[in-house]
Amino acid sequence: MSAEEPPVKPTIAVTMGDPAGIGPEVIVKALADDEIAGLASYVVLGDQGAFDVQGVRNPLQGVPDTLRCDSHIALEDFANAPPEAIAARRPTTEGGRASVDYIERAVRMCLAGEADAMVTAPISKAALKMAGAPYPGHTELLADRTGAARHAMMFASPRLRVTLVTIHRSLRSVLDTLTPEAVRDAVDLTHRALTDWFGLDRPRIALAGVNPHASEGGLFGDEEARILEPALETVRGEGVDCAGPLPADTVFLRAAEGAFDAVVAVYHDQGLIPVKLLGFHDAVNLTLGLPIVRTSVDHGTAYDIAGQAKADPGSMKAAIRLAVKIAERAKGKGVRNPLGS
Amino acid sequence: MSAEEPPVKPTIAVTMGDPAGIGPEVIVKALADDEIAGLASYVVLGDQGAFDVQGVRNPLQGVPDTLRCDSHIALEDFANAPPEAIAARRPTTEGGRASVDYIERAVRMCLAGEADAMVTAPISKAALKMAGAPYPGHTELLADRTGAARHAMMFASPRLRVTLVTIHRSLRSVLDTLTPEAVRDAVDLTHRALTDWFGLDRPRIALAGVNPHASEGGLFGDEEARILEPALETVRGEGVDCAGPLPADTVFLRAAEGAFDAVVAVYHDQGLIPVKLLGFHDAVNLTLGLPIVRTSVDHGTAYDIAGQAKADPGSMKAAIRLAVKIAERAKGKGVRNPLGS
Repeated sequence: MSAEEPPVKPTIAVTMGDPAGIGPEVIVKALADDEIAGLASYVVLGDQGAFDVQGVRNPLQGVPDTLRCDSHIALEDFANAPPEAIAARRPTTEGGRASVDYIERAVRMCLAGEADAMVTAPISKAALKMAGAPYPGHTELLADRTGAARHAMMFASPRLRVTLVTIHRSLRSVLDTLTPEAVRDAVDLTHRALTDWFGLDRPRIALAGVNPHASEGGLFGDEEARILEPALETVRGEGVDCAGPLPADTVFLRAAEGAFDAVVAVYHDQGLIPVKLLGFHDAVNLTLGLPIVRTSVDHGTAYDIAGQAKADPGSMKAAIRLAVKIAERAKGKGVRNPLGS
Repeated sequence: MSAEEPPVKPTIAVTMGDPAGIGPEVIVKALADDEIAGLASYVVLGDQGAFDVQGVRNPLQGVPDTLRCDSHIALEDFANAPPEAIAARRPTTEGGRASVDYIERAVRMCLAGEADAMVTAPISKAALKMAGAPYPGHTELLADRTGAARHAMMFASPRLRVTLVTIHRSLRSVLDTLTPEAVRDAVDLTHRALTDWFGLDRPRIALAGVNPHASEGGLFGDEEARILEPALETVRGEGVDCAGPLPADTVFLRAAEGAFDAVVAVYHDQGLIPVKLLGFHDAVNLTLGLPIVRTSVDHGTAYDIAGQAKADPGSMKAAIRLAVKIAERAKGKGVRNPLGS
């Protein structure tokens, strides 16, 4: 038998997000944690100036140098955020442009195999718009830059995993445009993620109904019969174990208690209410359907507390841990891209 | 000064609900608890046969007699449920008719001042329909029998109170028929309940938005600007402290952490997902807007475990405790009917 090679730690690209937000701080705090630092090699994509400007007000000044010197934690300094924009602590054109630069570089690294996964700090939608990149969030920007035909957002916390069929759109437009295909895609991407990324053999998924009591057999609304049932028929024919449509008011509790490995929610608040109630400080945002692995913190830029050393790095640590776990599983399988096939 | 009279305990009418469900069992178990028994005088409206038939399989046989003998706990035996219907453990015409009889008697007792509040065990909507009383639930039946012009359902658990603007209707019909008046009524009834029934001086209410991020200023949907904001303007003009419309994915967490005394949710699942996640075993259903006080358990008939001594009386105990507390406050104020004025 040939000698077993020592396992190679994955390389994680970490984007700084909006340099005027709390991204710089939560990255520094997360990577200063020995457990996190030991999990992988890291390339932080950001701006040294953000650490400097924000460091004036926080006690972490030394860490940016460590980022540069330690071979396992490197900073790729874009020097693309003017100090005024960083100090502004609000959405700016420069901050938006800088955020996009970091993300695009991370995508290229992942696609080229220079990184095994990317972890993103929060961006500002308003800043993106000012910079001429009017995406509602990372997910849509990443789908665009990677050419992903379909994608979905999953939130993963220790107690609950939830995938959204729709994200940032009005409730009315959800009802007006929902199709069996969209539901089918979300269930299918969830099944693949649970299998390929979370290592579950026979994942059990549940689909939440749209109407009260999942319409109780058509008593309140027809979306279950018209859209959800046909989607379930398709995915079941493909061998996916997906229960439903189940009453939304109890399905998340049942999943949290172990009955299901993930719940597919039809609209934003249906999925996010339980995610935030059950995992507010440790939920990780995971993008399904991309040809790369990407996780994200589950909080915003929090401009109001930027540079004050008050930010909690818990969500960033959780996002890094999940990215590392998925990257290792993907490497172990010899597939870089379990969902892109 | 005149001698203070000893406080008179309130009288609570307890309806058995569907005699083939777990109502009989949870009533017996709750009233067998010394703490609960000591809180009030009770009149159970039901059928001795339900205890007998179900008692064959449970260890509580002695308690129905206690219900009869103890002057503080009386059973008004309607003898209206045939043993076959009880033993069927499913919706029957007879069970539905019996359930309605108990409820109508309790309403009359409350309206006549023979009882200070009513507490209801679970009924079956299917059985009600079979019996020619096609109400979706207690609330609509009670509103009809008391002639209440407006009403709303509140769920109260130790961590969270939630009022629903709409209950059992399709999500699409919610969007199609929602009016500022309906929202205003729900907020107003919530304010009155918090003041008159929960004894809060300056209750803080929050209204949840309909769309993701409460539409973020109109970015995703117009229900906030078109319906919710005008309703809030009205209630604020009436001196009600109601924040919102706030993003639904965080407002319940904020309320549970103490920022608000109650949240008004626009549709069933929006309110019930957080209620069931945060208070599954001790949430009490409270009907606002009726000229009587009524609380209810937050679970169904559970026919499948009826007669097996497995039912948890926790929700029935919580419903009784809340009914007693509200009845005492109403008596103390010399008003029988704080919301009906």
